[in-house]
Amino acid sequence: MSFKVNSIGRVRKVGEETKIIIEKEFRPALKELDQFSHVIVIWWISGKDNDTARANLQDLPPFPDAPMTGIFASRSPARPNPIGITVVQLNSIDHKEGVMSIKRIDAFDGTPILDLKGYFPPSDRVKNPQWPDFYKTLPEWYPDH
Amino acid sequence: MSFKVNSIGRVRKVGEETKIIIEKEFRPALKELDQFSHVIVIWWISGKDNDTARANLQDLPPFPDAPMTGIFASRSPARPNPIGITVVQLNSIDHKEGVMSIKRIDAFDGTPILDLKGYFPPSDRVKNPQWPDFYKTLPEWYPDH
Repeated sequence: MSFKVNSIGRVRKVGEETKIIIEKEFRPALKELDQFSHVIVIWWISGKDNDTARANLQDLPPFPDAPMTGIFASRSPARPNPIGITVVQLNSIDHKEGVMSIKRIDAFDGTPILDLKGYFPPSDRVKNPQWPDFYKTLPEWYPDH
Repeated sequence: MSFKVNSIGRVRKVGEETKIIIEKEFRPALKELDQFSHVIVIWWISGKDNDTARANLQDLPPFPDAPMTGIFASRSPARPNPIGITVVQLNSIDHKEGVMSIKRIDAFDGTPILDLKGYFPPSDRVKNPQWPDFYKTLPEWYPDH
């Protein structure tokens, strides 16, 4: 089964600034979002919307001792549905212009945005998760910027 | 701009058991996922894939003192793109049959799955986030089941 998703905005990177620009019709949906310090951004990995990338099911993560890893255990951008999710730190929102100023995002300038969800500790913050040892050269928490 | 997403599997709820069944062609992508205790499930809120639900930009969260809230600051299933994300606790994976046994998910039996991503503390676990006071009758962390 297939479904249709629509872009609601774009990533904009200009110099040192990173922004998400929300299209005019969706700006009312930003109300109260600035009460969150962090936002889960759901975006379209547009450069990977092709048959080759969508057929990628395993790869070798760029970490020492990593085994061949299934794409669902990896954040590879080449995956069956090119959906990216990134927790971003929010600076401010201009509701009238639909501009969210954020610290950074691992998506290119121009990337289409599909959805935003405030980072919600009761459902998103896991105190004691387990994850593969081969990723453990990275920090154990989301970095404070 | 519009894009196409495809179902990679389904939620199955039978009695007390909750499972995600992954379609045969995508099962290799589960490799190493069982090294994660928690998985971010990206699913299609299929009952809300209609013009009325997609036009919903604000609602009143069911919490005391909650103001009218933009959909991006809410987890309402009626939203411009009916994409749900849920962190689930993983029990086990049967790789051959493509069956993930999980603790629970806030999605109905039969819900299409779009993507899975292991819960990855360096990008997903925020130590000290801020979120709206009107949600603070809920726990401050994801519950241990």
